[in-house]
Amino acid sequence: MALLAIDFGGTRTRAAWFSPEAALQARAEMATPSGPADAVIARLIELAQSVIPPGERPAAVGVSAPGPQAHTGRILHAPTLPGWHDVPLAARLAGAFDAPVAMENDANLAALAEYQRGAAAGCDPALYLTISTGIGGGAILGGRLFTGWRGLAIEPGHIKFPLPDGRILSLEDLASGTALGRMARERLAAGSVPSSLRTAAVIDGKTVGTAAMAGDALATAVVQEAGQWLGLGLVCLIHLFNPQVIVLGGSVARLGELLLNPARQVIAGYLTDPAFNHPDLLRPSQLGDDVCLIGAALYAQASLG
Amino acid sequence: MALLAIDFGGTRTRAAWFSPEAALQARAEMATPSGPADAVIARLIELAQSVIPPGERPAAVGVSAPGPQAHTGRILHAPTLPGWHDVPLAARLAGAFDAPVAMENDANLAALAEYQRGAAAGCDPALYLTISTGIGGGAILGGRLFTGWRGLAIEPGHIKFPLPDGRILSLEDLASGTALGRMARERLAAGSVPSSLRTAAVIDGKTVGTAAMAGDALATAVVQEAGQWLGLGLVCLIHLFNPQVIVLGGSVARLGELLLNPARQVIAGYLTDPAFNHPDLLRPSQLGDDVCLIGAALYAQASLG
Repeated sequence: MALLAIDFGGTRTRAAWFSPEAALQARAEMATPSGPADAVIARLIELAQSVIPPGERPAAVGVSAPGPQAHTGRILHAPTLPGWHDVPLAARLAGAFDAPVAMENDANLAALAEYQRGAAAGCDPALYLTISTGIGGGAILGGRLFTGWRGLAIEPGHIKFPLPDGRILSLEDLASGTALGRMARERLAAGSVPSSLRTAAVIDGKTVGTAAMAGDALATAVVQEAGQWLGLGLVCLIHLFNPQVIVLGGSVARLGELLLNPARQVIAGYLTDPAFNHPDLLRPSQLGDDVCLIGAALYAQASLG
Repeated sequence: MALLAIDFGGTRTRAAWFSPEAALQARAEMATPSGPADAVIARLIELAQSVIPPGERPAAVGVSAPGPQAHTGRILHAPTLPGWHDVPLAARLAGAFDAPVAMENDANLAALAEYQRGAAAGCDPALYLTISTGIGGGAILGGRLFTGWRGLAIEPGHIKFPLPDGRILSLEDLASGTALGRMARERLAAGSVPSSLRTAAVIDGKTVGTAAMAGDALATAVVQEAGQWLGLGLVCLIHLFNPQVIVLGGSVARLGELLLNPARQVIAGYLTDPAFNHPDLLRPSQLGDDVCLIGAALYAQASLG
């Protein structure tokens, strides 16, 4: 029997129908609606129903969701879902589709997908980082998804760094899309350096990234700073996991070398032993926007035993 | 057949004879000699020979050594062994004792020992941190010693933190015994606060710890600062491994709550989800000074299959 996969993201929500071998058959997506949980879940079910062939029923439903507690099947709290509190999403979907639901953290499922089908194939340990609105991560250790004692690992976005002004911020406050927007707004307010961003209607990760790719000096400096913080976070991951590969996904990772060059310089400068490093350590995600959908399908497939 | 274990440490070197079941039978120790590798290794062999019962030969030799590359059997470089460069210690010991040698990083073997015989028994993931001259660590994941792709993991002493003055320091520069000494000297030089350390002949981790335990305000503030940095490092480890236990060993960890209270406060303040934490998460080492010896014996035993 076939599989239903749902990627419930902070910005976009996707659903897809997969063959029993987890090959993608049909997909649909929408902007993630905002509002109370009941209304959002109703829209989610509608979207998923649109990819199910007439007369079919999924053998299992794989769900990718934000937050370290996703594996419980409940959305306890997620910065991208204001107002949601302890919502039993998996149970609601199980009822709607009359099928068992396997729900996991989005970045954990992305790690699984890149390991089984993408840039991390054959690599162990394999780490995955998604850098978009926030920063999430997943780890494959010894051929299996590693989630720690209570299923909460890994959360690289919450590596902490003290700032010169005394604040202690998370990696995701310093290198995510959200961080790019904040840092650009701060630099614009603090000086009078000319920048194409001064006339931009919105200053966020997307517009800062676009301006940097177009050569805007202020935006480039912001991306460079984010890349250095990312590098410092990666130094931590490398010393702790000695990974064979770190796959970088998410919208901010698409800035490519603009972000990765400063990160690579920090890595080369701060590893205690050069044997931790190798030229192919950082790799771009190969599965793109569907990475969590594919991970959810693989996870649903595995849940059937 | 019985096992020989050698703990080749930065300060002390220990050797012990273990039964085939890895029960300790006889032990000896000395201050680690300084000097060229050949002379030091000769003393090491002498010490080890002193614990071997007459007429016996070890089935295997387990060796605990510093540095992330210890598993290669070679001492490539270690901050505590100035002048040593790429010394084939395991091969030299195999020749001396006519037995196979299993060599591993000291903190990795300590993690194994605390997991099989000590404070981490039954806990998974189990992390071990040794806080003494430097900071090292080991991880048991899924019941096995985790060492990463090239055997270099885990190195929590090399988690990096930016300082207000622009330097980027390692956790072991901020929370080890060496760090206690440096931070105390800096505080003494920077002000005129009265302190028992002003008349001390040596200001190092040991004297600062002793002064702090005796209530010296400056020394206490130094230990508190180190505890806060330790806390920030532990926040990183907790978010990445979601461990069931973190065992703390080494001379600095013996300062107990003086060091751990500030660390616990930082942990409670900076975890993204309280489910990562629990009252029994941080535990003192149970195996004390013999932890690496016991780990080396268990590792030698396992190497025999």
